[in-house]
Amino acid sequence: MVVTLPEGYSFRALELSDYAKYIETLKVLTTVGEISSESFAELFNHWKEHPHIYQPHVIANTEGLVVATGMLLVERKLIHECGKVGHIEDISVAGSEQGKKLGLSMITGLTELAEKQGCYKVILDCSPHNVGFYEKCGYANSGVEMVKRFS
Amino acid sequence: MVVTLPEGYSFRALELSDYAKYIETLKVLTTVGEISSESFAELFNHWKEHPHIYQPHVIANTEGLVVATGMLLVERKLIHECGKVGHIEDISVAGSEQGKKLGLSMITGLTELAEKQGCYKVILDCSPHNVGFYEKCGYANSGVEMVKRFS
Ligand SMILES: CC(C)(COP(=O)(O)OP(=O)(O)OC[C@H]1O[C@@H](n2cnc3c(N)ncnc32)[C@H](O)[C@@H]1OP(=O)(O)O)[C@@H](O)C(=O)NCCC(=O)NCCS
Ligand SMILES: CC(C)(COP(=O)(O)OP(=O)(O)OC[C@H]1O[C@@H](n2cnc3c(N)ncnc32)[C@H](O)[C@@H]1OP(=O)(O)O)[C@@H](O)C(=O)NCCC(=O)NCCS
Repeated sequence: MVVTLPEGYSFRALELSDYAKYIETLKVLTTVGEISSESFAELFNHWKEHPHIYQPHVIANTEGLVVATGMLLVERKLIHECGKVGHIEDISVAGSEQGKKLGLSMITGLTELAEKQGCYKVILDCSPHNVGFYEKCGYANSGVEMVKRFS
Repeated sequence: MVVTLPEGYSFRALELSDYAKYIETLKVLTTVGEISSESFAELFNHWKEHPHIYQPHVIANTEGLVVATGMLLVERKLIHECGKVGHIEDISVAGSEQGKKLGLSMITGLTELAEKQGCYKVILDCSPHNVGFYEKCGYANSGVEMVKRFS
């Protein structure tokens, strides 16, 4: 699938200097809370120490500022001949930037990264009202997500 | 939730010597393929190098042989104040051992491990016909799993 970003926008790995806009963009998705630049740096470095597992990405606008987020997690399994599975997590597009195919570009970019690394599939969980979006990204329904929350 | 294993059975971390029975038990779940003891050792060591992320477990019978498998993956996120999420993967109970609450014990064991490590939730994906089992384990439906497979 070829997807074109708006002129001047880029799909790239998360950088430490993305701190403020990365957090702001993720607030569209869910509760983020107060995260100091020190906490962000600590987490960023943890992810960086495991580059084959954690692969956080962003789409940046013409000014280089984050307007969409997405994480690719690559899991090494035993099943499927020691196969790898990509997990897509924490997709978010800034409110004013929705509907410009940034979500589609993010999913396509992360999916291609997973395929290049030899994953046999990529999975993600979403709410029922976003199924149509992921279908447009080439994904199909394959099961049920179950959760146990701790209080 | 207190779950009692059959007399002499144990819930424990995967060991290198579990090679043959671990693979045999996973074949109940899906395609595994031919995996040499060298490939298993390489993967086992990779998991061991990332003990905060990959936490493979088994239930062993009275002879110490694997009869159930389960992986807890712990993911560090930015959302929810740098929260951690547990992912349960690759649950399998040997055919002749099903119906003895080993599945329930495995899910309970992995869920408690995740809670102790400060995860705010544990998630897993399953097929619709296993939803009832996970509900008995205290899980609730929370979304849709989407997949993109590569050929
Ligand atoms: C859902 C979200 C990621 C989509 O990103 P986006 O950049 O707004 O969407 P795109 O412009 O890339 O949309 C691609 C296609 O999917 C469609 N689409 C977008 N959202 C959709 C939805 N919820 N249901 C059905 N189709 C949808 C678009 O209309 C477009 O279709 P088209 O190609 O026929 O024009 C984004 O709106 C978002 O971040 N929402 C809030 C946070 C969230 O829900 N995250 C996902 C959690 S699972
Ligand atoms: C599904 C599976 C993990 C369940 O493990 P198990 O040890 O056989 O089940 P348990 O004995 O722990 O069952 C606990 C409870 O769930 C119920 N249960 C088990 N499987 C069920 C199912 N598919 N649907 C509804 N309830 C189910 C049991 O009846 C029992 O209920 P009870 O407490 O009222 O007696 C196991 O049968 C298995 O490995 N199956 C094949 C591989 C597979 O499907 N893995 C899961 C992929 S998502």
